[in-house]
Amino acid sequence: MELLEAIYTRRSIRKYQDQPVEEATVRTILGAAMMAPSAGNVQPWQFIVVDDREKLARVANVHPYVGMAVQAPLGILLCGDLRLEKYPGFWVQDCAAAMQNLLLAAHDQGLGAVWTGVYPVEERVQGFRDIFALPDPVIPLGLAVMGWPAKPGQRKDRFRPERIHRNRWQG
Amino acid sequence: MELLEAIYTRRSIRKYQDQPVEEATVRTILGAAMMAPSAGNVQPWQFIVVDDREKLARVANVHPYVGMAVQAPLGILLCGDLRLEKYPGFWVQDCAAAMQNLLLAAHDQGLGAVWTGVYPVEERVQGFRDIFALPDPVIPLGLAVMGWPAKPGQRKDRFRPERIHRNRWQG
Repeated sequence: MELLEAIYTRRSIRKYQDQPVEEATVRTILGAAMMAPSAGNVQPWQFIVVDDREKLARVANVHPYVGMAVQAPLGILLCGDLRLEKYPGFWVQDCAAAMQNLLLAAHDQGLGAVWTGVYPVEERVQGFRDIFALPDPVIPLGLAVMGWPAKPGQRKDRFRPERIHRNRWQG
Repeated sequence: MELLEAIYTRRSIRKYQDQPVEEATVRTILGAAMMAPSAGNVQPWQFIVVDDREKLARVANVHPYVGMAVQAPLGILLCGDLRLEKYPGFWVQDCAAAMQNLLLAAHDQGLGAVWTGVYPVEERVQGFRDIFALPDPVIPLGLAVMGWPAKPGQRKDRFRPERIHRNRWQG
């Protein structure tokens, strides 16, 4: 899929067919995520691939907007690892860029996915930490829930010229 | 350009030809950035397009790693607008996802770009705030410096299987 086509047709998909996602596809998606830029190129990410249905059901208990995970074949939890940071505080941006690559690659592969935010909501962070036995320096940023989409997403344009300023703030 | 090709061949480019970037190209890049997902779909971003050479020279004074801006024809400062947030604290991730779209689209258009981090380093935030007259609720996340690349970037693979865990942390 062409890059701009992928960017414009990617949507948050919350209903999936009852079919598994092949390992090779998971590998492709994770490879794309790991190509994101990061501060000092430290690549401060860790990924938990979740296909255990019991775990996918449990995450819905610790996050109010993850109900779709119960019916999903796959989740990928993207975490920041503070031990890998060189420039403190940039892990959130680095991991968010990796998540965006991941979502685009999933869409490119024909999957539907949705980014559910975990950090910085403390009770969600603690809930995911417990379920996935994360060590203290590993912080769950967000969970991408995905599967083969029940129906295709629609192309959308969100262009807002009023958000563009020239050389200084124009309020 | 194919999505995965774009993801794998995008690199941080810090040397540019002495040529301007057309408005239509800037529009394409910004449109792609604005297609990023955001918490509650609030799209909490603002963009300052910077082609004033004096401003590009000034940013190098408030950020230790932005020397390339002095020779660049274009910068795009991506900011989060706290007034637009629905779920507090998610603006950083939202804007980082937009930045990743922006960098991929720039690469797709043949430009070379580099993401220079501003937030959360307080002195950089203040420096950019002063130069671009940002109101208090608008926080500069990062500056993408770009131009037509002096030389092409090389394809790279950053796949690290040791960063992948299955259903729980495997340390």
